[in-house]
Amino acid sequence: MRALRVGDGAASLVEIEPPEPRGEALVRVVLSGICNTDLEIARGYAGFRGTIGHEFVGIVEDAGGGDLARGQRVVGEINAGCGRCARCATGDPRHCASRTVLGIVGRDGAHADLLRLPARNLVRVPDGVPDQAAVFVEPLAAACGVLERAPMAGDAQAQVAVIGDGKLGLLCARVLSAAGARPVLIGKHPDKLARAANRGIETAVVDRARDRGRSFDVVVEASGGAAGFALALDLLRPQGTLVLKSTFHGETPIDAARVVVEEITVIGSRCGRFAPALDLLARGAVDVADLVSEIVSLDRAEAALQRAAAPGVLKVLLATGA
Amino acid sequence: MRALRVGDGAASLVEIEPPEPRGEALVRVVLSGICNTDLEIARGYAGFRGTIGHEFVGIVEDAGGGDLARGQRVVGEINAGCGRCARCATGDPRHCASRTVLGIVGRDGAHADLLRLPARNLVRVPDGVPDQAAVFVEPLAAACGVLERAPMAGDAQAQVAVIGDGKLGLLCARVLSAAGARPVLIGKHPDKLARAANRGIETAVVDRARDRGRSFDVVVEASGGAAGFALALDLLRPQGTLVLKSTFHGETPIDAARVVVEEITVIGSRCGRFAPALDLLARGAVDVADLVSEIVSLDRAEAALQRAAAPGVLKVLLATGA
Repeated sequence: MRALRVGDGAASLVEIEPPEPRGEALVRVVLSGICNTDLEIARGYAGFRGTIGHEFVGIVEDAGGGDLARGQRVVGEINAGCGRCARCATGDPRHCASRTVLGIVGRDGAHADLLRLPARNLVRVPDGVPDQAAVFVEPLAAACGVLERAPMAGDAQAQVAVIGDGKLGLLCARVLSAAGARPVLIGKHPDKLARAANRGIETAVVDRARDRGRSFDVVVEASGGAAGFALALDLLRPQGTLVLKSTFHGETPIDAARVVVEEITVIGSRCGRFAPALDLLARGAVDVADLVSEIVSLDRAEAALQRAAAPGVLKVLLATGA
Repeated sequence: MRALRVGDGAASLVEIEPPEPRGEALVRVVLSGICNTDLEIARGYAGFRGTIGHEFVGIVEDAGGGDLARGQRVVGEINAGCGRCARCATGDPRHCASRTVLGIVGRDGAHADLLRLPARNLVRVPDGVPDQAAVFVEPLAAACGVLERAPMAGDAQAQVAVIGDGKLGLLCARVLSAAGARPVLIGKHPDKLARAANRGIETAVVDRARDRGRSFDVVVEASGGAAGFALALDLLRPQGTLVLKSTFHGETPIDAARVVVEEITVIGSRCGRFAPALDLLARGAVDVADLVSEIVSLDRAEAALQRAAAPGVLKVLLATGA
């Protein structure tokens, strides 16, 4: 089968043996989404070697002992826990100390014809949700994770800002808006900000953001840069909350004295659960269709990876059948 | 009167005119405590010019229209708010945007014969609390502030660590212990750690701290260094809480990706209210007598400041009457 694999700082589409089930489920991938994390992993971040990709929608090929039937359409939570520790016992493997993570840690990923995951990780996709929406469930769940870690971010009375007009920032702004909040999306790119504005979300260009003073109760940092962290501190009121949503590379210099003096709360947020995200898509409460820039055949995965890194490009999807 | 004043990166004891009340209270200082912040301000941190010192016990000289009488023994909360904004209206001026702060921001401080503060900032000291304990109310209140911002730090069931065996770390460990928690104090100095151990607090030397793995629910960083921040991240369980208690200088490099991936919550904590701290002293629940290294006449304030910066020295007090 085809697989987009990384190692030694480069990514290559190669032909490899399909995975054996080994007690897990096999899924035939239909669409997979290229995430910024894929680009970082391809550059060597986290030292991962193997097939990248962690956003997908596919068809069950082998249910691996789970409740699903062959042929059902599924998405899959990406953290695969040991199934035995206290964390896993609560049904939440996201912080299992010996977890593997699809296409990120110790487990081959989704930019391939077939992938393997524990059957318990798979979630059936409602019929009304098209493939091109279902493939967004993982990043949309990550955006929903903001509300799990910082429920006040969804409060209609709160002053909320989201920094970063990339895919993650747009999804966060839409999720918070769907939850009832009135977020302001702050970014650099008029065409990307327009994708929030045309959904009724207030936007601001980053150069003017500081004009608003230290007025925000909650700021979600989704730009992934140290400049975003610094801007967030300039926007927050004393005792405000900064939700860190992007993974930053290496050491990030921060003004820790400001965190202390202004008594800021900084909350890290990574993966979310799939159920709330699927529910938003099924209800039509969040729409993602306008975030797809291109759909590219898996055959051209290497070029697609480069394309995903180009300025102005939002989501690039890989299609196994195209 | 005598006053220890800073400007241009140096501190000097000088003779100046005593302050006019101008509608505020005047307090004749009995003892003042030298804080690490004083040392940093003397080096030019925060650009303050004027009389330093923000820890004191004194005698009311002019009640400034408040309920206190001349001759009463008082301590004073250091943040003086505008008295009109929404923050001040709640009775808490600690985050008033136009506040002054005794000996730190826009207001002459306590290393002097007399100081001025709004009458509402003064708190009467119970008769059973000696001067040498009362002068610790401000830093003890800061330690109590950990519980205000992160109540779980006082939980008997929580695994809690305090990093830093200086004055602030020792006070934090004692406050958390008095609240019912069982903190582990982590530090470098056997003689300082002994001051926690002889109060029944578990201690660990910093070089062995990582042996405990990522097992702590809450870590209080009171060492003031980037190394303390990094150690805290290595000690916290996923979704644990890091309370930043020390003000750090300049930009601190942090592993922000770790905060996101492990979903850590970082909580800044600065000043506390005086009432809980005075209550701890009055009840004998926290004892501070062994934290005094030296009592020096205000006449020798410059030398005392240098002494306070010497290795192994804990609190140096300045006495106006000595």
